[in-house]
Amino acid sequence: MTDCGKMIVVSGPSGAGKSTVLSRVMAADRSIVFSVSATTRKPREGEREGVNYFFTDQAGFCKMIENGELLEYAQYVENHYGTPRTPVEENLKKGLSVLFDIEVQGAMQLKSLCPEAILIFVIPPDFSQIENRLRARGTDSEKKILQRIKTARFEYSMAMNYDYIVINDDPDSAANEIKSIITAEKCRARNRQNYLTEVCSL
Amino acid sequence: MTDCGKMIVVSGPSGAGKSTVLSRVMAADRSIVFSVSATTRKPREGEREGVNYFFTDQAGFCKMIENGELLEYAQYVENHYGTPRTPVEENLKKGLSVLFDIEVQGAMQLKSLCPEAILIFVIPPDFSQIENRLRARGTDSEKKILQRIKTARFEYSMAMNYDYIVINDDPDSAANEIKSIITAEKCRARNRQNYLTEVCSL
Repeated sequence: MTDCGKMIVVSGPSGAGKSTVLSRVMAADRSIVFSVSATTRKPREGEREGVNYFFTDQAGFCKMIENGELLEYAQYVENHYGTPRTPVEENLKKGLSVLFDIEVQGAMQLKSLCPEAILIFVIPPDFSQIENRLRARGTDSEKKILQRIKTARFEYSMAMNYDYIVINDDPDSAANEIKSIITAEKCRARNRQNYLTEVCSL
Repeated sequence: MTDCGKMIVVSGPSGAGKSTVLSRVMAADRSIVFSVSATTRKPREGEREGVNYFFTDQAGFCKMIENGELLEYAQYVENHYGTPRTPVEENLKKGLSVLFDIEVQGAMQLKSLCPEAILIFVIPPDFSQIENRLRARGTDSEKKILQRIKTARFEYSMAMNYDYIVINDDPDSAANEIKSIITAEKCRARNRQNYLTEVCSL
């Protein structure tokens, strides 16, 4: 008997260090695949088409919405982001877990569509680190940084709608917390009922 | 900020290999202490007073009940088992997690007293292994073995009242599942609300 794949939705403010943490979660476990989002945001240095995102323009994004190709979508700091439906469904069918790096509005949409999805909110140990990390990244203008901080405050106010909160004081320890959550969720009694059936029906 | 200690209640049929698994959970983590039960059962070879159990007789056990010294107690295969209250309360106050190895009736009592307790049911991958392991242990008479198998069937019927089911196909992997459950429970949003308060009140 094998455990079923899970939908693991991870959100958190820009500057929480999510990407590094998630790449460590993925590196250690081949049963977890990443859901590559579609976005109208321009690629950052090093980001690759189909690996980090499917990059598209406004018209292409609207077409995906019209064709029902997106599981969820939302606007975030002037850009649009959405989750292509087909790869998610195919991976879950194969018994793989799917990891989503999506913002809070998309996460709430996904939770209402799929109540069994596991929602994890990643934050740094101290809010001031968000600003520090955004400035250190050096990819955004001052105006955009202030907008991202404002957005982060809104996101924090939504955190209690998540199942788990992971503190990223160190990427390895945060990755370990996420891996533990995935393992624990597979152990939930309702997910392992099949191990009891044989005995209980005797 | 540090995470609070948890009450982790582990049950499972005789022969599920719980003791080995739990000793591996404890070995790896000093923030988890074992709740030593009181029992009227005779010590098995290698078992030590105050480490594995507090061994007592029927009269001594009744006195502990009368004095309100036990958090829960129950009869199991002709013997009585109970959890001394004081060490549990003291360890939780210190922020340590307390691990209970107790049978299903006691676990249900503890859950109704402390709804925040985490209940884990440990089983072998296959029910037939229970009989095999009981016979291999060589400590019980044929009559007792049959009684333990009957009890195991009753215990399986209670497993869906637990939060988690851990499959002991290998003690290290089962210990890893229990450690993951403890880590994940510390990450639950309701247990980490304090990390949000400062930001959300700004």
